[in-house]
Amino acid sequence: MSLDESNLTDAVIGRMEGCESPRLRQIMTSLIRHLHDFAREVELTEDEWFEGIRFLTATGRMCDDRRQEFILLSDTLGLSMLVDAINHRHRAGATDTTVFGPFFVEGAPALPHWANVSEGIPGTPCFVSGTVRDTGGRPIAGAVIDVWQTDGVEGLYDVQRREGGMYGRGRITTDAQGRYAFRTVQPVSYPIPDDGPVGKMLRKMGRHPWRPAHIHARIAHPAHETLTTHIFVKGDAYLASDAVFGVKDSLVVDFVQHPPGPTPDGGRSELRFSTAQYDFALAPA
Amino acid sequence: MSLDESNLTDAVIGRMEGCESPRLRQIMTSLIRHLHDFAREVELTEDEWFEGIRFLTATGRMCDDRRQEFILLSDTLGLSMLVDAINHRHRAGATDTTVFGPFFVEGAPALPHWANVSEGIPGTPCFVSGTVRDTGGRPIAGAVIDVWQTDGVEGLYDVQRREGGMYGRGRITTDAQGRYAFRTVQPVSYPIPDDGPVGKMLRKMGRHPWRPAHIHARIAHPAHETLTTHIFVKGDAYLASDAVFGVKDSLVVDFVQHPPGPTPDGGRSELRFSTAQYDFALAPA
Repeated sequence: MSLDESNLTDAVIGRMEGCESPRLRQIMTSLIRHLHDFAREVELTEDEWFEGIRFLTATGRMCDDRRQEFILLSDTLGLSMLVDAINHRHRAGATDTTVFGPFFVEGAPALPHWANVSEGIPGTPCFVSGTVRDTGGRPIAGAVIDVWQTDGVEGLYDVQRREGGMYGRGRITTDAQGRYAFRTVQPVSYPIPDDGPVGKMLRKMGRHPWRPAHIHARIAHPAHETLTTHIFVKGDAYLASDAVFGVKDSLVVDFVQHPPGPTPDGGRSELRFSTAQYDFALAPA
Repeated sequence: MSLDESNLTDAVIGRMEGCESPRLRQIMTSLIRHLHDFAREVELTEDEWFEGIRFLTATGRMCDDRRQEFILLSDTLGLSMLVDAINHRHRAGATDTTVFGPFFVEGAPALPHWANVSEGIPGTPCFVSGTVRDTGGRPIAGAVIDVWQTDGVEGLYDVQRREGGMYGRGRITTDAQGRYAFRTVQPVSYPIPDDGPVGKMLRKMGRHPWRPAHIHARIAHPAHETLTTHIFVKGDAYLASDAVFGVKDSLVVDFVQHPPGPTPDGGRSELRFSTAQYDFALAPA
């Protein structure tokens, strides 16, 4: 009955004989096999094992309703983008997907076109617009676009501040021509929260925590696959080294800079401002 | 610059160019490769990924100074015993090792021979004794044995109770002949704490949470490798299906049952009692 390196893995997997879910059994079999292979491959010491236990414990204890350190861990180890890639194959013609990230919040306000999702928030005024289409190029009316982003100076999401309300979030619905439009501030590149276990891990790995500037978008419509993506700001210094590996060339957008003057919403800006134009394409459901 | 299934893993690993620790780089390279291979192999869905995030978060949030849910997770997935096996090869003649577990507490009282480590605790009185030797059979004087165990009825460690002080723990030093001796209650089989995420996982895997009855021992001496092990009670119903895979044949000990009468410590028991005799052998440091 004694178990050793040679038979332990099979014994653990064999203990699932009573598992009622074939899928869970498949997942746990693969997980246990890879976990054990990892330990054998690096000959993990007991001190290293305990360091791992401490790391996971600290990561869990960092999580609350404003901070999801395990998603950060998944993002920084490239797992999130890999899962994204595995689940969005064969989407010819549809907009590329990228990480959901830990900063989405339910309940952003529904806003009319050209509403300002960053009212009173510091940064360069920015006007974003475009069309949502299907993969055949037909406009989609009534698609609901959730956008979320940092402020335009410090690079913080609202949930990263201990004070103040919601900002940088809105829900815009496309019109009969599939068009959307909103006003915001141009997002800036920012470090992912690096005051916790994941930040410490990145430093030990010799990595920086920066993400290139981007606006998150999640676009939902009953007849189409929900799209989770970003639009990135062309020229950002971190496009080639995103801490969470989320950049795709097709998502990098020219944020055109303008002097003070007339703006796309029919108004006028006394400050320099930028405009970005991006058309999304949704895959069928 | 776009990353996909085919090049993402190498990109994540390649990001460690600035890592100053070759060992950390080796560990993280293997970990990332196995983590990604797991996700690719089972084609992890986004919902399953998020269920994993939720599981790890709940596991972390369950941890406090009395509960270490990540050690339970490692134990129940067989990782702890695998790490134990990897780190204690080539120990010919030394006592087999087994899991440390989550219930050790620093600062157990130093006790004389035949002291009762379970004073006032319910259970069958039990007298444990033996000798600590080196692998050449020479007695080791001054070896320090930490023992810890459950009570003898409910199968709970002291730290699992919200009330009451320390019990079932003691620190005994071997005499000039290498001998040790203590009184306790005979431990009983018990479920690992299964009111948290790990218990839920075990149920979904079709597994029971029971461990066969055992007494933990950690034996330290400056000239020898510290030994972490258990002695298991022969005849226990869970010896063949320990929830943490810790049983080794060589650690199963006959707990001999006696009618009321004279006891090995020179006293007398009005109750039925048991005796167990086990000799430990320590590997050189």
